[in-house]
Amino acid sequence: MTDTATLTAGLHKALPPIAYAGNPLDRADAVRTDPARLAAVQAAAGARLLVLDGLSPEFSAEGGLVWAPLAAAPEGADLVFLGLDPQGHGCFAAVAPALGGSTAPAAPNLRAMLDAMPAADLAIYGGARSLVDWHARHRFCARCGHATRAAKGGWQRSCANAACGAEHFPRVDPVTIMLVEHDGRLLLGRQPRFPAGRYSALAGFVEPGETVEEAVAREVLEEAGVRVRDVRYVASQPWPYPSSLMIACHALADDPAIAIDHAELEDARWFTRAEVTAALEGRPDAPFGAPTHTAVARHLLEWWMVARG
Amino acid sequence: MTDTATLTAGLHKALPPIAYAGNPLDRADAVRTDPARLAAVQAAAGARLLVLDGLSPEFSAEGGLVWAPLAAAPEGADLVFLGLDPQGHGCFAAVAPALGGSTAPAAPNLRAMLDAMPAADLAIYGGARSLVDWHARHRFCARCGHATRAAKGGWQRSCANAACGAEHFPRVDPVTIMLVEHDGRLLLGRQPRFPAGRYSALAGFVEPGETVEEAVAREVLEEAGVRVRDVRYVASQPWPYPSSLMIACHALADDPAIAIDHAELEDARWFTRAEVTAALEGRPDAPFGAPTHTAVARHLLEWWMVARG
Repeated sequence: MTDTATLTAGLHKALPPIAYAGNPLDRADAVRTDPARLAAVQAAAGARLLVLDGLSPEFSAEGGLVWAPLAAAPEGADLVFLGLDPQGHGCFAAVAPALGGSTAPAAPNLRAMLDAMPAADLAIYGGARSLVDWHARHRFCARCGHATRAAKGGWQRSCANAACGAEHFPRVDPVTIMLVEHDGRLLLGRQPRFPAGRYSALAGFVEPGETVEEAVAREVLEEAGVRVRDVRYVASQPWPYPSSLMIACHALADDPAIAIDHAELEDARWFTRAEVTAALEGRPDAPFGAPTHTAVARHLLEWWMVARG
Repeated sequence: MTDTATLTAGLHKALPPIAYAGNPLDRADAVRTDPARLAAVQAAAGARLLVLDGLSPEFSAEGGLVWAPLAAAPEGADLVFLGLDPQGHGCFAAVAPALGGSTAPAAPNLRAMLDAMPAADLAIYGGARSLVDWHARHRFCARCGHATRAAKGGWQRSCANAACGAEHFPRVDPVTIMLVEHDGRLLLGRQPRFPAGRYSALAGFVEPGETVEEAVAREVLEEAGVRVRDVRYVASQPWPYPSSLMIACHALADDPAIAIDHAELEDARWFTRAEVTAALEGRPDAPFGAPTHTAVARHLLEWWMVARG
């Protein structure tokens, strides 16, 4: 099994790194939970604020993130502690009192700029976006309806109603995303909201009471009518729209008959290895457009080209 | 790679099944989202209600779940659609108006009875418990503080304030749980709340902005001061206390020096294969008590005995 683990690790190293992963900040949990240490980090020279316009980043001339002194935070904003940079300086983001949050993905032109952002900055931005958005959408206690307030450097919100006192934590939603294989071909689908020609891996949220493997099998059956076996984990990715944990898998199908759920998918088809290759290479004769390189679906396709070659 | 996938699948099949997995109900997503179909399922003969006392099950003489007619639901309760049984009968659970919910694990004597429950019933109970508890703790809108109401057969809550209209979905919290290996020994720890002598795998929540693999590395470093590499996914489990998705992993360490975070752990130690064997066999001379068989930590240990043998 050691050989397999090494082979798998080697495979992943041969592929482009997973976007939104590789945050270089030290989350420094011990700082969050110690008000005196947190205050010291905040007061120290070098502490800085991630500049956001709503939930979107501002871009430097080089296409990276922009930072400002902590004093630039809006009046009355909650400060969220993102972590310590390699020099030990505290990095923060602000949750402005008027920020409403959003569950919508970034606009296409913004996505293109994010696709070109340096990897470390993109990872910092993704984590910060999920956290700031969570605060903006959780100003009230789901248990009793009273106001909540930020705690532990922004990694908790606590109900201000002493009779309730519920503690709330940032949400992370596990989502399965899967390549289904039959006879050397891959099942890919398109949602109506996709750009023209784009096909990608099927995906869906993990529900209470099921394993990752069960969620994969259920989603593929629901959306495409295909039964799968031998579900296998491949990789994971944090996806900040608004706060998913993408769990990327591979599975096998014995019967290729497709029955599309048109409430979920516009189309679903089996693509040959040559067709997937053409799409990944962006060739004009490719029968479909591949997912962008920040999507874990593309990583899955690239993994498949190597692992199942 | 096919051989590896087959081998891994074979390994899992050779182990006891994962507790709380294997729910035999069809979640029937298409029924949830179609009010007419849902009403028909609810009105049909054979529709039935899972009997709960708060969040705990009642036990039949055989130690299984107890079901009642839907009419037994408390006045004003929300009905949650659990799915269709193999005969096509709708199975439901009720969320009583007074139910407050809980984040606490089940009491030890209850846990012992659950440990002995038939696997299919335990899986149904786990999913139902997470869902009922989520409703009880999410009666208000986190975005605006107004009351929410159940929708889509209990798989959604919608804000009753038309100016807000936020939709809320059942929460699933991904948690990493990991066996760390160095020189043929395993790192296990004990939390103060564990029964005397018990050691188990380290674990922690995945945070926004990190991969599963990054969360594993961070948790082991935070709690035990050990750096890991080659993190590898092994299995997953739904854990309904209150609604975790346990993501079980294996990782390697090069340096066995331990630095315990006593805010998290009472102790952490390396155990040899012989010691783990003694614990799994429940031998009186075992140096520690193994996790109960419903815990994925035990599955991880059993997997390790076979996979790394």
